[in-house]
Amino acid sequence: MDFSLSPEIIALRDKTREFIAEQIIPLENDARASHHGPSEELRRELVGRAKAVGLLTPHASKDMGGLGLSHIAKAAVFEEAGYSWLGPTALNIHAPDEGNIHLMEEVATHEQKERWLRPQVAGQTRSCFAMTEPSPGAGADPSMLMTTAVRDGNDYLINGVKWFITGADGADYIIIMARMEDGSATMFLSDMDRPGITLERNMDALDACFTGGHGVLRFENLRVPASDVLGEIGKGFRYAQVRLAPARLTHCMRWLGQARRAHDIALNYVSRRQAFGKPLAEHEGVGFMLADNDIDLQTARLHIWHTAWLLDKGEKGNYESSRAKVVCSEAEWRVVDRCVQMLGGQGVTGESPVMRIFTDMRAFRVYDGPSEVHRWSMARKLVHAAGKTSN
Amino acid sequence: MDFSLSPEIIALRDKTREFIAEQIIPLENDARASHHGPSEELRRELVGRAKAVGLLTPHASKDMGGLGLSHIAKAAVFEEAGYSWLGPTALNIHAPDEGNIHLMEEVATHEQKERWLRPQVAGQTRSCFAMTEPSPGAGADPSMLMTTAVRDGNDYLINGVKWFITGADGADYIIIMARMEDGSATMFLSDMDRPGITLERNMDALDACFTGGHGVLRFENLRVPASDVLGEIGKGFRYAQVRLAPARLTHCMRWLGQARRAHDIALNYVSRRQAFGKPLAEHEGVGFMLADNDIDLQTARLHIWHTAWLLDKGEKGNYESSRAKVVCSEAEWRVVDRCVQMLGGQGVTGESPVMRIFTDMRAFRVYDGPSEVHRWSMARKLVHAAGKTSN
Amino acid sequence: MDFSLSPEIIALRDKTREFIAEQIIPLENDARASHHGPSEELRRELVGRAKAVGLLTPHASKDMGGLGLSHIAKAAVFEEAGYSWLGPTALNIHAPDEGNIHLMEEVATHEQKERWLRPQVAGQTRSCFAMTEPSPGAGADPSMLMTTAVRDGNDYLINGVKWFITGADGADYIIIMARMEDGSATMFLSDMDRPGITLERNMDALDACFTGGHGVLRFENLRVPASDVLGEIGKGFRYAQVRLAPARLTHCMRWLGQARRAHDIALNYVSRRQAFGKPLAEHEGVGFMLADNDIDLQTARLHIWHTAWLLDKGEKGNYESSRAKVVCSEAEWRVVDRCVQMLGGQGVTGESPVMRIFTDMRAFRVYDGPSEVHRWSMARKLVHAAGKTSN
Amino acid sequence: MDFSLSPEIIALRDKTREFIAEQIIPLENDARASHHGPSEELRRELVGRAKAVGLLTPHASKDMGGLGLSHIAKAAVFEEAGYSWLGPTALNIHAPDEGNIHLMEEVATHEQKERWLRPQVAGQTRSCFAMTEPSPGAGADPSMLMTTAVRDGNDYLINGVKWFITGADGADYIIIMARMEDGSATMFLSDMDRPGITLERNMDALDACFTGGHGVLRFENLRVPASDVLGEIGKGFRYAQVRLAPARLTHCMRWLGQARRAHDIALNYVSRRQAFGKPLAEHEGVGFMLADNDIDLQTARLHIWHTAWLLDKGEKGNYESSRAKVVCSEAEWRVVDRCVQMLGGQGVTGESPVMRIFTDMRAFRVYDGPSEVHRWSMARKLVHAAGKTSN
Repeated sequence: MDFSLSPEIIALRDKTREFIAEQIIPLENDARASHHGPSEELRRELVGRAKAVGLLTPHASKDMGGLGLSHIAKAAVFEEAGYSWLGPTALNIHAPDEGNIHLMEEVATHEQKERWLRPQVAGQTRSCFAMTEPSPGAGADPSMLMTTAVRDGNDYLINGVKWFITGADGADYIIIMARMEDGSATMFLSDMDRPGITLERNMDALDACFTGGHGVLRFENLRVPASDVLGEIGKGFRYAQVRLAPARLTHCMRWLGQARRAHDIALNYVSRRQAFGKPLAEHEGVGFMLADNDIDLQTARLHIWHTAWLLDKGEKGNYESSRAKVVCSEAEWRVVDRCVQMLGGQGVTGESPVMRIFTDMRAFRVYDGPSEVHRWSMARKLVHAAGKTSN
Repeated sequence: MDFSLSPEIIALRDKTREFIAEQIIPLENDARASHHGPSEELRRELVGRAKAVGLLTPHASKDMGGLGLSHIAKAAVFEEAGYSWLGPTALNIHAPDEGNIHLMEEVATHEQKERWLRPQVAGQTRSCFAMTEPSPGAGADPSMLMTTAVRDGNDYLINGVKWFITGADGADYIIIMARMEDGSATMFLSDMDRPGITLERNMDALDACFTGGHGVLRFENLRVPASDVLGEIGKGFRYAQVRLAPARLTHCMRWLGQARRAHDIALNYVSRRQAFGKPLAEHEGVGFMLADNDIDLQTARLHIWHTAWLLDKGEKGNYESSRAKVVCSEAEWRVVDRCVQMLGGQGVTGESPVMRIFTDMRAFRVYDGPSEVHRWSMARKLVHAAGKTSN
Repeated sequence: MDFSLSPEIIALRDKTREFIAEQIIPLENDARASHHGPSEELRRELVGRAKAVGLLTPHASKDMGGLGLSHIAKAAVFEEAGYSWLGPTALNIHAPDEGNIHLMEEVATHEQKERWLRPQVAGQTRSCFAMTEPSPGAGADPSMLMTTAVRDGNDYLINGVKWFITGADGADYIIIMARMEDGSATMFLSDMDRPGITLERNMDALDACFTGGHGVLRFENLRVPASDVLGEIGKGFRYAQVRLAPARLTHCMRWLGQARRAHDIALNYVSRRQAFGKPLAEHEGVGFMLADNDIDLQTARLHIWHTAWLLDKGEKGNYESSRAKVVCSEAEWRVVDRCVQMLGGQGVTGESPVMRIFTDMRAFRVYDGPSEVHRWSMARKLVHAAGKTSN
Repeated sequence: MDFSLSPEIIALRDKTREFIAEQIIPLENDARASHHGPSEELRRELVGRAKAVGLLTPHASKDMGGLGLSHIAKAAVFEEAGYSWLGPTALNIHAPDEGNIHLMEEVATHEQKERWLRPQVAGQTRSCFAMTEPSPGAGADPSMLMTTAVRDGNDYLINGVKWFITGADGADYIIIMARMEDGSATMFLSDMDRPGITLERNMDALDACFTGGHGVLRFENLRVPASDVLGEIGKGFRYAQVRLAPARLTHCMRWLGQARRAHDIALNYVSRRQAFGKPLAEHEGVGFMLADNDIDLQTARLHIWHTAWLLDKGEKGNYESSRAKVVCSEAEWRVVDRCVQMLGGQGVTGESPVMRIFTDMRAFRVYDGPSEVHRWSMARKLVHAAGKTSN
């Protein structure tokens, strides 16, 4: 048992921390960051800065141009990047690109990688992932997928509506989950500028940290050649799992950084602001919130580390990443909610960055499967495992 | 013990419910409602509609042009008005005007009432209440008041900075808390267009339901004649209490309406949306959230009713209104948070009104004294009372 | 809306308070109170004292010898009686007798009442209620009833095992739920000394406040004449509901008294015990617990009052008594848990009566349907009601 | 970062698991285990069994006859031992002996070790630790120490009252904290059979797992020769810290085993018990409790491991052991409370071992400093550290 990080990871973590503090946080109030995340122009500037210091797309393989980080290394670096909401965009580790890059590395052909992945790793392009559908389609229950793909000669024709598609606006390529005639699901790759893809609108969302916001997409006879199928026909759900377990965990990492940022701001505030004859921090009620914040931050971090270690060992870690997702999304949320409370009026206004972290964070309990779906999935596995043990 | 409402109150409640459903909710997406609440033009339209059906400023005395509602009647009517975030503006019972009207009725001279209160009750003007100050001034601890009022002939000269002043932008008159040379506090009335008052900026706030948003005001040698002192010199903190106990409670009432609205939306959604083979509502985890919502809504309502009854009996109800404020702000918040969770993606986007209720509601745990201040004040009273009993 | 109690109820409440303080609490350490509740000898002494002051069996009809209390009156009196764990035994309002008396009044024949009810109201006898069965029989789900009743001439032969039968040891008569051949359920009355009833053992229970503890009963060809059927054949589940809604609520009342007792003890302790330079009560963390206790106590009380008022109006109140049961069992439990924490070492030892209240109270979240069953039942009703409204 | 255990630790852990399952759990219902823990006769049998398989006093140094376990190894072994409440007694790692052994190894002289420690490590004797005093003495605040030690020739005369002294009844030797004339504190060693030590009574406690229960001790002119001072005069508080940080953590470990046991029992029960047409475990509400249990168990384990690793590195870990204590005592308690709820009637009776685990566990939130004291201590350190960083 050893909780220490290697000197290389420590160096990378510290470098990221310094980079975020010196180069990214000062840009947080940049006018080019809107309610739908940073503009493309701002994104390019951010990416350029990360590239200059050697931190761009660090989780991609060295082959593709990244640093080939282990999951443990990601845990250390992504938390630091997440300390600013612009950090993940800068390092090119924001959702959904981070997960798409991982999936492409695992499943795409050499040709597909050269066409779509390499420029993305270089920070030149963005992507989106089209799975979620409006009712009565696939939401928390992916088996309700309604978008269809039908073979037509050497192509597939895709029809359907997707929503909550993060980064759709401005994305260069897309990965689409669609249902086959036999009920199985397949993933398809497509440039976004192909005829048959319409960005109907951008959704008005509680969060503002995702580049491109969240869009509603319509596919009308979108024609995708068979060569642009991602992986094998019918394995869409399997690949979704391949993508999801680590993608969930990187959400935990990035948002841990955000929660720590909120805590640091609140801690600094209550150490200085006076009320009833002493600094707020010397009131036990406030002190208990600080202690609980630290407990929650550390709890989230420990679950992340443990799950990352399992993934590094080659385990699938589906159970543990579900558990970490529930723990982190709820613990990090509690931290931010307490920070709002400690900051009082400042917490509910733009006087402090915490208001924004608060609204950005809430959706985390919903994304990547709401807590309820994960708890239920965990329960079934616990019962199943117990059944095997006790017989 | 009797929990029934009089036929008159029931009629008024039902009329309000119908009015909100038919005339106000359809205006919720009106373009004139911005991030700083409804525009003056929209406000006038809303007020006009309430006036037309006889629901305008119902809590004001009949003398002044209102309906002279008891606190219990307010509990019934304000919850209904609060069902839409435009409702309180329509009925002219929004904060801070609702509390200011109450305070003016209690303390102002006949002349002051005719000048400021009567047009306000008629829905023609708006007011604001300037108490909170930026650090190191008065926040949760009002004794830290830094704005000063100094006698100058027959006038007072007021200097200081106030922030988080709800409705400042567009208000016609203001009530200002200022510190006297002897350390006591006094309330002053002033038109907003007097020289010496500057609206420095509007704050970017989490909530968007307050007409005029929240502003930062600077007073520089604001000259207020002695005749515009509200009540007596040196009784500012006492009047703040007069205003606060009922004002706190009306916040509870209005936001109870908002929480019930969120619950109704979520209940409707989970009854229809399918996942994992059945409507969401048939999943126990979701059902438990519905039950807990109902528990919280009813708990809030019971505390409101009980405290309103005490106030109607002529008791000050400071302890009970503190308690009700803690209970309601936390219970109603839990309801809305659960609704977001039940709605999933819809809860964190503008697809559903619940996202907005969520952001509007969070500040309630901070306004009118954060929960922590109330809990501490309650504790001291409990200990004090026990000390008296046990001797 | 009126939260005041009538002068008669106030007088009765105050009399009960005084009776408990002066005559019952001093007996709490009586050696005749064991782990299975007060001995029969002690019970008779307690009952004698209540009789002497005119407080015996106050909820029974005047006809039967009680005071014919309304539900609201019960709310006031039972809370006071519950202040001591011996109080309900003294007033003859302890479970299950309190509920059995109510059921007998509603359903029993004149003859049955004279035989079993009148002496019970007089405090001379005790009863038990046999519904719950060991797995795979009826637990939280009463439809799983396995005890059978088969017609045999003019009699019924009852066979089965019941457990968790409160007060079985020493009871004079029993009400038995059994399954008929057609699947319906029926209630049967029987003296406890009939052949065919065996008290197999007393269970070792967390609580020690129930007279007679909790027993396991075996029925082997217990012969019950048709004249001892309680009410009509096949209506057992219906009568169980008749009994349950008010019985649930009286649990809430009595345990509210216990929770208040624990709170008073803790409040007194923290007001005196010093730590870190001041009384514990002046530590915010402790103060917050006191405030939360008061919130929980008042919340429980308000739900009890509201539901009692509904029952007094003649409504069934099934939904509301479910809700009150969840609210009270959880709120009162939180109070007691906080009291243990405030008392520290004293809270977890017999140095303070709170330890005993703590162990007595835990089962309340399980009795009369665990919280989970009530929440689920509430959810179904909410969804059902919403479905009707929205069509 | 590496969460794997060495093969040696895994072997020891598995051996302990098997030992507990096969040799200790079958003794749990032994009549010699009373409300004050296992009798001396039973203790000797338990210890004998552990000795026979080479698991006795494994945390003691090899020099003294133990296995010299690291803190990480203790985490693995103690959790397994804790799976049965007799396990810690069997392995001789129960409180307070476990912590006393640790303290003696750190501080005692060679002579003292030979006299008191060696037979204790061999399982032949027991000890107690006398720090806590009744009001107004040292409770949560150790600085309020009232027991005095006054020099008298070559001896010290000790006077005072201690309570909540775990294991006092039947202990062979005692470590006493006493206040010196200069206000500092010193630890003294004494055989328990010396004149001047009186066990006034055993306390009636919520827990029943501690050998010897909890006693009240009176020292009247207890004469202790200077050679029996433990460590140096005036360093009592320092040594208390030396003892406390690891002692706190071993509590976390042992009770993690108890919580896991409760969870396993509940999981097994809900997998089999039917209600409403399916096994309890297939009800989402129950499933969520299972998932939350697993989350809490794993969270506790991760904090234990992390803190143990720090201690193994030679760090003091005071902050982290405080944090782990809060996390574990609360998480493990939640687990057990949920298990009671899942077990329903069985959870609140001796039908299942969980009732006993429930009562044993509650005090953990009070022992070794209640959660509130730890949270406050954490807060001060967080504020202090932030102050240093931000300057």
